[in-house]
Amino acid sequence: MKINGNYKNLQESYLFSDIAHKVAAFCVRHPGREILKMGIGDVTLPLAPAVVSAMERAVAEQGDKATFRGYGPEQGYPFLREAIRAYYGTFGVFVDADEIFVSDGAKSDLGNILDIFAADNTVLIPDPVYPVYVDTNRMAGRRIVFAEGNEENGFLPMPDEKVAADIIYICSPNNPTGAAYTARQLQAWVDYANRQGAVILYDAAYESFIFGRGPARSIYEAEGAKECAIEFCSFSKTAGFTCTRCGYTVVPLALKREGVSLNKMWLRRQTTKFNGVSYIVQRGAEAAFSAAGREQIKENISVYRANARAIADALDGAGIWYTGGKNSPYVWLRCAGASDSFAFFDRLLEETGIVGTPGAGFGKNGEGYLRLTAFADEETVKKACRKLRAFFS
Amino acid sequence: MKINGNYKNLQESYLFSDIAHKVAAFCVRHPGREILKMGIGDVTLPLAPAVVSAMERAVAEQGDKATFRGYGPEQGYPFLREAIRAYYGTFGVFVDADEIFVSDGAKSDLGNILDIFAADNTVLIPDPVYPVYVDTNRMAGRRIVFAEGNEENGFLPMPDEKVAADIIYICSPNNPTGAAYTARQLQAWVDYANRQGAVILYDAAYESFIFGRGPARSIYEAEGAKECAIEFCSFSKTAGFTCTRCGYTVVPLALKREGVSLNKMWLRRQTTKFNGVSYIVQRGAEAAFSAAGREQIKENISVYRANARAIADALDGAGIWYTGGKNSPYVWLRCAGASDSFAFFDRLLEETGIVGTPGAGFGKNGEGYLRLTAFADEETVKKACRKLRAFFS
Repeated sequence: MKINGNYKNLQESYLFSDIAHKVAAFCVRHPGREILKMGIGDVTLPLAPAVVSAMERAVAEQGDKATFRGYGPEQGYPFLREAIRAYYGTFGVFVDADEIFVSDGAKSDLGNILDIFAADNTVLIPDPVYPVYVDTNRMAGRRIVFAEGNEENGFLPMPDEKVAADIIYICSPNNPTGAAYTARQLQAWVDYANRQGAVILYDAAYESFIFGRGPARSIYEAEGAKECAIEFCSFSKTAGFTCTRCGYTVVPLALKREGVSLNKMWLRRQTTKFNGVSYIVQRGAEAAFSAAGREQIKENISVYRANARAIADALDGAGIWYTGGKNSPYVWLRCAGASDSFAFFDRLLEETGIVGTPGAGFGKNGEGYLRLTAFADEETVKKACRKLRAFFS
Repeated sequence: MKINGNYKNLQESYLFSDIAHKVAAFCVRHPGREILKMGIGDVTLPLAPAVVSAMERAVAEQGDKATFRGYGPEQGYPFLREAIRAYYGTFGVFVDADEIFVSDGAKSDLGNILDIFAADNTVLIPDPVYPVYVDTNRMAGRRIVFAEGNEENGFLPMPDEKVAADIIYICSPNNPTGAAYTARQLQAWVDYANRQGAVILYDAAYESFIFGRGPARSIYEAEGAKECAIEFCSFSKTAGFTCTRCGYTVVPLALKREGVSLNKMWLRRQTTKFNGVSYIVQRGAEAAFSAAGREQIKENISVYRANARAIADALDGAGIWYTGGKNSPYVWLRCAGASDSFAFFDRLLEETGIVGTPGAGFGKNGEGYLRLTAFADEETVKKACRKLRAFFS
């Protein structure tokens, strides 16, 4: 019996446990001092009333023989795929219901999609980055090259024709930097991918934080994207589903490689290794896209957006360089006056009680930066903003 | 970009769609004639009241800021892992909570577990078999050898020392045959696996249908199983969760290969490619193992068991050879008087309206047999039994 030896090449991730230990030590040193948690990218506002009602009804249906359902379609119920299709329509993107696959979250699909690709592909991943892209490819032994994000390009690397890539990751609005591509910038990536015959894996988990013109809501705003891009999205940040678990993936019918439909491959993968998302959860997700649900989740997102705006304003006032804060729940700031991101994290915690995430945890180009999240409650964020102003002055 | 070429070696599965077409054609030929559905392995009784109440409470909690939860542990909440640990204790098997991983269903884990094994292992799979074992390994390009199930061994193949295997599948009580191994028979498999250094993937999805002494409830009833076996179980058939989605996998802390803990590898896989099961669903699963929940799900299982017993009695009366029907919701019967299982399926449908599943759909050794399931309601099964008696007389 041989294990998958690629697992030996994975780095153990101690980032968030290291942070937890530092915070615990701080509490021991300074009993009674307030901790302002802005480290974790997790929502704090409850589910929308429309979602709660829909799930209550679904639970009751499953408790009644007359309305009880057994196995559902692996790809998701037509009612939810139709709601997602209609949601895409609200920002002018046309997708077919057969292109939509409902999942238990973007993280699952971002990992599992790799099943349909050979191991000997070259993967292009931005740095800094959500660590899951790197780890899932290391697990399969794929060669990884990085696209350098930095202050010069606003942490939005653009394609380099000299780099050959088969699989390309893009996350926009980005985790951890909050930076977001315009449709025109995405067009350059789509054109590059189509020239190379590459496939783009587009992580749109934060698209609902985009308001007004500017950044693209979907890779499919770029022409030719249906021939090269798979898009991953989630109810986690859109509707507060981090604990409820639902996402969706779009695999266009036009997307083929070696003459094979990737939509059909993914359907085969999902019908073989997955049995669909809980009916109860899918009814909740459907309700998030109802008229009432959309109003209610918009209110929650407004709270997070106002938080992000407040953090950005505090940094503007202090003259600190940052990305994000506008169309994203993340603010990515320069660690002014510190030797590295962990030293900055320590000093910020010591002086203000604010917990961020050191950028070094997201890759080598993250060194020198810190991520703050806007998911804490308004009072916490207001307090943090006052302390940030004092810290930088 | 290279696709995973192994997908080209997968056979398209038309089994259940072929059956659906045959049934539709029957309805056209014989308008008004009753169809007795005993083909699909899906439950029909509603969720237990204890499960419904627990999920209603969980939904309400998620709608209230004071009790709202964000991301949960990828491995499952401690409250559910503790309930599963205690459930194992009710039949005398000790597992540690750290050995238990909560999932969205046994099918997901049975497929995903293969991530932690190298592609160049030899896989031993019984024939006939649940098709997912074969397909998930073909997707990774693994070499497959089959263990022959037949009337001589009661469709319970035993290990053959001349066969070298790295990964061994056992499903007991079996899908599709309903046959179940005793602890003593499993001991032979465990000893064989330990001699070979192989890992057993033990599918216990139907363990809750075992009553009294006889078949084993868990592979861990065999000595040394913690050094070689991973066990997969599910709330689907135990508590009617086919639509609610919850299962669990036990990866023993003692299970190591090449000096590496498979428990740690699986934990790494799950934390990287999975974000846990919905809190609401996990609260429902916990309630299935409460005192009230256990009584209620036992009642549902009793109905299915009585159905299986009735089918077996009808076959006994007709002198037809079969397996299952006792500790399983499946009855696997010889296609007496027919050239093959599809011809038998056609004749049975034409003369009685009963829909079964032709054994050929489960592998070459399934040819000549038919699977009937006991999940239909009591009236349907009673009617089917009368018709079976007439059919065979």
